[in-house]
Amino acid sequence: MVSKQEILTAIAPELEKIETVLQRNFRSYVPFINEVSQYILFAGGKRLRPLLMILATRLCGAETTSQSYRLCVLFEYLHAATLLHDDVVDEARFRRGRRAAHHLWGNQAVILVGDFLYSRAIRIAVEEGNMDILDVISRTTTLMSEGEILQLLNLDNAELSEKDYYEVIYRKTAVLISAACEVGAIHANRDGWQRDSLRRYGELLGYAFQITDDLLDYTGASSETGKDIGNDFKEGKVTLPFILALEKANKEDRERLLLLIKKNQVSKEDFREACNLIQKYQGFSRTREKARHFVEKALAELEKFELSPTRRLLEKLTQFILVRKT
Amino acid sequence: MVSKQEILTAIAPELEKIETVLQRNFRSYVPFINEVSQYILFAGGKRLRPLLMILATRLCGAETTSQSYRLCVLFEYLHAATLLHDDVVDEARFRRGRRAAHHLWGNQAVILVGDFLYSRAIRIAVEEGNMDILDVISRTTTLMSEGEILQLLNLDNAELSEKDYYEVIYRKTAVLISAACEVGAIHANRDGWQRDSLRRYGELLGYAFQITDDLLDYTGASSETGKDIGNDFKEGKVTLPFILALEKANKEDRERLLLLIKKNQVSKEDFREACNLIQKYQGFSRTREKARHFVEKALAELEKFELSPTRRLLEKLTQFILVRKT
Repeated sequence: MVSKQEILTAIAPELEKIETVLQRNFRSYVPFINEVSQYILFAGGKRLRPLLMILATRLCGAETTSQSYRLCVLFEYLHAATLLHDDVVDEARFRRGRRAAHHLWGNQAVILVGDFLYSRAIRIAVEEGNMDILDVISRTTTLMSEGEILQLLNLDNAELSEKDYYEVIYRKTAVLISAACEVGAIHANRDGWQRDSLRRYGELLGYAFQITDDLLDYTGASSETGKDIGNDFKEGKVTLPFILALEKANKEDRERLLLLIKKNQVSKEDFREACNLIQKYQGFSRTREKARHFVEKALAELEKFELSPTRRLLEKLTQFILVRKT
Repeated sequence: MVSKQEILTAIAPELEKIETVLQRNFRSYVPFINEVSQYILFAGGKRLRPLLMILATRLCGAETTSQSYRLCVLFEYLHAATLLHDDVVDEARFRRGRRAAHHLWGNQAVILVGDFLYSRAIRIAVEEGNMDILDVISRTTTLMSEGEILQLLNLDNAELSEKDYYEVIYRKTAVLISAACEVGAIHANRDGWQRDSLRRYGELLGYAFQITDDLLDYTGASSETGKDIGNDFKEGKVTLPFILALEKANKEDRERLLLLIKKNQVSKEDFREACNLIQKYQGFSRTREKARHFVEKALAELEKFELSPTRRLLEKLTQFILVRKT
């Protein structure tokens, strides 16, 4: 069993450097941009993506330098830009336990600051001057923006298939985490199997991460995740626990589930009823099983690398996905 | 006097190629993206930016190839992305004579399709594989996104200075037109004075273009521009005619102008009264004078190049800015 404290202690030096670069590197001509960006960038994010790039570089046996840290924060900027545009899209009231940015500053400002962060991220990649990295980043952002739209269009489709769900979370989450890991390998000058393995590792980790995230939206406690629970359900967003339950449900329960998720106003009781129905068909435990499956495949990619403290750390991080509560 | 028909005839072959590439090049995995993008991309835009890149390359004495056309459309994608995000921001009811995209599909979809077009533009630049071009593009998009935010923040400031106004339109318009011209030179492998001159030419042309645009928002006829007239004023957006009038107005008229532009609901009569006051202080004629000044400086940059049919065409295009009605 991996403990959160153990991981946090192990990554503390890297996280500190990432925070420093995020703070120092981030300056805009327009003070207001700093204000909004700071709000989203320093809201207690996990820095998972920059951290993974750094660890991927080290896993390849390369040293990480100040240049590595300058580069890695671009993944946090891209992520923050997505969150900002997503806030508008999802009309989420809370994000990481605080009011969503667009409720404080309005949609307009939030869209534009998202654009700014996105531009900054591309700018960092250009300053790195590596065409392979730019190739990965630009393919990634295209896939991501298509994914956001797919997700929006899927809101009307309560009978989303498991396959379509994976397509959405690939683009929404897995592709960026995958890019961070792949860029770590490129930054370490590894263009062969290491690059391929790290890209696949990141992708598999990304699937596991998003599946767990979607599970926590049903089963997490609001005080721990800092998010409203049941947000996805209330918005009619179909995720894996729902899909897997629907698959097995008898006709009556199936119709009830579909009716509940399509409601315009979902009450606490509606959500509790849906949870009970999903539970009845092992929707939660089977979702956990799927996440475990991705984690195991991700670990298999790591095993291709020589054993090292960095590999150990990445393994623990990967396993932690399954037990995390926030 | 330059006629619109004369210019349109001269650029017809280039425009046709640009349209073909825009249509062919543009395919997304998600059909819905095509639908929204088509709406904004094929709504009768002027293709000014791609056209300028092509003409800039030729002005440098280089041939334009199919690769040039593939590259130049990125400027139309960037422009369209800005328009989409701007539509949300401005809450404009009409854009090029049709309903603004966000009224047809909702803010959420429009934001995301804007993101997609932006990603596509970066992708095209990466595929070109020229780091200098990527450098120009990434600096440009950062400046532009800051500019959009500046403009939003300035909405509260009815006493915007002429200097601040130039800062806004530099970032909003001039920098992208400048980038298109500069990239034309880079694409032609001209890194010395030609690149510098074309960057400056584009910037000066951009100022002239936006100043005229802002003037037409007061003096254009809705049937010709395809836009509501007085849009900027109704939104409280301060542009050059207003600034120049305010500068000269007596205390009473000054206060009246400020009161009118700050109104939450601007009636037709309010707008007409404001126009009369601006007219009284030569706000329109002095704005036209400023635009002419930029056009003359832009023409001076063109004169540094050898005389050629392309230079002649660019000169006519530049002069046309001053007489255009749409």
